[in-house]
Amino acid sequence: MNEITKQLLGLVSDLQDVPQGAYNIREDGACAGRQNSEHIKITPKTDKPGIDIHIDGSTKGEKVYIPACVTHSNVEDLVYNDFYVAAGADVIIVAGCGVHTDGEEESKHNGIHRFFLEKGAHVVYLEKHIGIGSGTGQRIINPQTWAELAEGSYMEMNTTQIKGVDSTSRLTKAKLDKDARMVIREKIMTHGNQLAESAFEVELNGEGSGADLVSHSVARGHSQQTFRSRIIGNTVCTGHSECDAIVMDHGVVHAIPELTANSVDASLIHEAAIGKIAGEQLIKLMTLGLTEKEAESKIIDGFLK
Amino acid sequence: MNEITKQLLGLVSDLQDVPQGAYNIREDGACAGRQNSEHIKITPKTDKPGIDIHIDGSTKGEKVYIPACVTHSNVEDLVYNDFYVAAGADVIIVAGCGVHTDGEEESKHNGIHRFFLEKGAHVVYLEKHIGIGSGTGQRIINPQTWAELAEGSYMEMNTTQIKGVDSTSRLTKAKLDKDARMVIREKIMTHGNQLAESAFEVELNGEGSGADLVSHSVARGHSQQTFRSRIIGNTVCTGHSECDAIVMDHGVVHAIPELTANSVDASLIHEAAIGKIAGEQLIKLMTLGLTEKEAESKIIDGFLK
Repeated sequence: MNEITKQLLGLVSDLQDVPQGAYNIREDGACAGRQNSEHIKITPKTDKPGIDIHIDGSTKGEKVYIPACVTHSNVEDLVYNDFYVAAGADVIIVAGCGVHTDGEEESKHNGIHRFFLEKGAHVVYLEKHIGIGSGTGQRIINPQTWAELAEGSYMEMNTTQIKGVDSTSRLTKAKLDKDARMVIREKIMTHGNQLAESAFEVELNGEGSGADLVSHSVARGHSQQTFRSRIIGNTVCTGHSECDAIVMDHGVVHAIPELTANSVDASLIHEAAIGKIAGEQLIKLMTLGLTEKEAESKIIDGFLK
Repeated sequence: MNEITKQLLGLVSDLQDVPQGAYNIREDGACAGRQNSEHIKITPKTDKPGIDIHIDGSTKGEKVYIPACVTHSNVEDLVYNDFYVAAGADVIIVAGCGVHTDGEEESKHNGIHRFFLEKGAHVVYLEKHIGIGSGTGQRIINPQTWAELAEGSYMEMNTTQIKGVDSTSRLTKAKLDKDARMVIREKIMTHGNQLAESAFEVELNGEGSGADLVSHSVARGHSQQTFRSRIIGNTVCTGHSECDAIVMDHGVVHAIPELTANSVDASLIHEAAIGKIAGEQLIKLMTLGLTEKEAESKIIDGFLK
């Protein structure tokens, strides 16, 4: 595990060293470390790059780390990770991704994560993305998340992209069975000439299923963001999507949330608001002695917290 | 003017007879009556079907009626009406459309209305659509509305499609200059196997411009509705779009409101909610002695009022 990977791991997974318990660290397209635990078994795929993560039903609150790092230019990493979460399991999956560029060539990570939650499984999925390094090459992260939630299962997805990622195209798709519940919290900040696209599609197929999706984003500099969400209610279900965006400098934000009620018993709502930081908020903080820049950054920190 | 036109006029324009003041009545693709007033002049186009309506700057609160009726099957009517509203004018335009079918062939009205509002012009535009008759042919109304609002002008658009229209595809586009304001209120109820598509695109180009769009719709039977709105903020401006839909029986509603902030000073919001009538509302009215059907229709009447 090289020094840049260590630095990236600290940023995306809050790890100072290899973690206790189960983990798989991916470095420049290869495995830099892997460990199983009593309840969580990780095996490499034989037909394509990636791993299978089997989480058994006795897992209770355990964390498993699946970070991926690209440490130099001219790497295009593609990985398929499948998570099989057994009935009754309760697990926290930490799956950050860091991309470092030192040259003119781009460094790119494409991660395709699939989740199969059995009855009553409980998953918290944390995904933090960052780009670092002084190279001029593009830092690109394109994650895809596919989730199938069986009866009564629960998945919470927390994704954060704070800085340094020049281009991202995120796709999240989920299908929910009876009484399953999906909570998505997305935070994105873009700056410079960055591009970020985020698309969600959630199908509420089972009675009593529910999805709650909230995206907070900040577009600074000349960056551009597109947010798409699609919630499809096919039965008695509830869906909520919310997109709040702050635009600064010359940032551009595009929000396209879509609702489809295919059943009279589907109850779907969405809200979106795009605007700059309210003047009165700035003035209030400036009255307390902060400069305008400090006040701005305080407000943004709170918004993305 | 035949008897069916008279009946349709009553339904779409609340007219019992030809109105006072300026009007143009279109019947099965031809003119069934036309009258100018002191301030409003209507002239037929020479290059294509339709009329030019010139509203001078001294018009103060005057109504002009531009209804169109299709009274039998196998008519496909296409009309281009252009409204030139002079600086300072204040006018109410009543432009309903009624379609009657007596046979197996469809009857169809496509109306393309363009509005050119000069500085400070004030327009209220009322558009009511209805389909009647016992024929099995489709009753189709596809209206397009294009509006250009100069500095400080105001346009309010009230559209209502209550029943009998088997298929509609509505398109409304507007461009707003400095301090111009556009208010759109749409009401649609569909039943049977009806299809309704409604798309709005509003560009807020001038400083201080604003758009406020509210759509209320009810989808009953096996009807399907699609609502699209797009608000594009290119400067200091405010945009609001709201789509509330009630689904009943096997109705399907699809809402896709889109916001684009191309300026840091654009403040844009939207909301949407799709669901069935709340149980507690029904129960409350039933406690007061109404049957379930009566309670339902009371709630829907209120929602579409």
